[in-house]
Amino acid sequence: MQQLISLLVENKPGALMRVAGVLTSRGYNIESLTVAKTVDPTLSIMTIVAEVGEDGRDLLIKQISRLVNVIKAVDLTDSRAVRRELVLIKIYVEEERRPALLTEVEIFRARVVDASPKAYTIEATGSPDKLNALIALLRSYGPIEMVRSGAMAMARAKQNKLPVPSYTEAALSEG
Amino acid sequence: MQQLISLLVENKPGALMRVAGVLTSRGYNIESLTVAKTVDPTLSIMTIVAEVGEDGRDLLIKQISRLVNVIKAVDLTDSRAVRRELVLIKIYVEEERRPALLTEVEIFRARVVDASPKAYTIEATGSPDKLNALIALLRSYGPIEMVRSGAMAMARAKQNKLPVPSYTEAALSEG
Repeated sequence: MQQLISLLVENKPGALMRVAGVLTSRGYNIESLTVAKTVDPTLSIMTIVAEVGEDGRDLLIKQISRLVNVIKAVDLTDSRAVRRELVLIKIYVEEERRPALLTEVEIFRARVVDASPKAYTIEATGSPDKLNALIALLRSYGPIEMVRSGAMAMARAKQNKLPVPSYTEAALSEG
Repeated sequence: MQQLISLLVENKPGALMRVAGVLTSRGYNIESLTVAKTVDPTLSIMTIVAEVGEDGRDLLIKQISRLVNVIKAVDLTDSRAVRRELVLIKIYVEEERRPALLTEVEIFRARVVDASPKAYTIEATGSPDKLNALIALLRSYGPIEMVRSGAMAMARAKQNKLPVPSYTEAALSEG
């Protein structure tokens, strides 16, 4: 099954290498991975979606937690975390089908961010399932090219939690 | 300076490890990295933003191009590629400031995707500069937590290019 893991890591050369090393050595295929800086530029949040067997989940989290540069590792697979993904899709579409395409794009709350005589570039965000539906729909209009960000997750706010002074670590805590 | 690199890679365990290895061994700090599958699930597109000296750029692209599992490596730093990024921001904001916050969120064409009595979770897309401006603005309203996808890039459509039957490779070609 696909596991969703969120990591808080020190932003140092080698941090990504160590995390990728653990996944590779266990033979887990990475479905997607995103890493970028947090409000504190010395720290990054890494979100990984990987195909991991039910047995391997706890062990994987433990193993990653112990790595140098990893401050915190959280399994968000079964959580109610907000999950969103960004996709950029370039679609080659004939002029007479463009109005119909635009109507469908609207339904998905997607946006045209670039246009040329041959193609539109469309940006959409949403759950991976929603984006898969959009991609399937667009493919019926013409050839597409796409770049996906992979899933990103944010734990939901706890009802009784006080505002957090530490910006980053709390983003990983399950609410 | 920050370099924007786009890679077409085979979706195999070890591919990420090899790319991360080259960057680490050269001591380049990774600003952001995203990797996810393309329309063809055996291939992934990887987008990397890294701090690379002007001298090192061509060499880095050459070195990455030669790696096992890397099909194509393109330097999009100076291109007119469409660049977009996704950010999820959880903001702890007092009730009386919420209407003003929502107006500002609207200006940035951002969206509230989750709400609780203590916090909003806001989703925004745009260029890294636009998102930095939004983040600075939101921080004036209260403590925030955030997860960023890092930059994603899509080469613009060539004016005279025919529709491409190969979905993926063309996404990296400079238009």
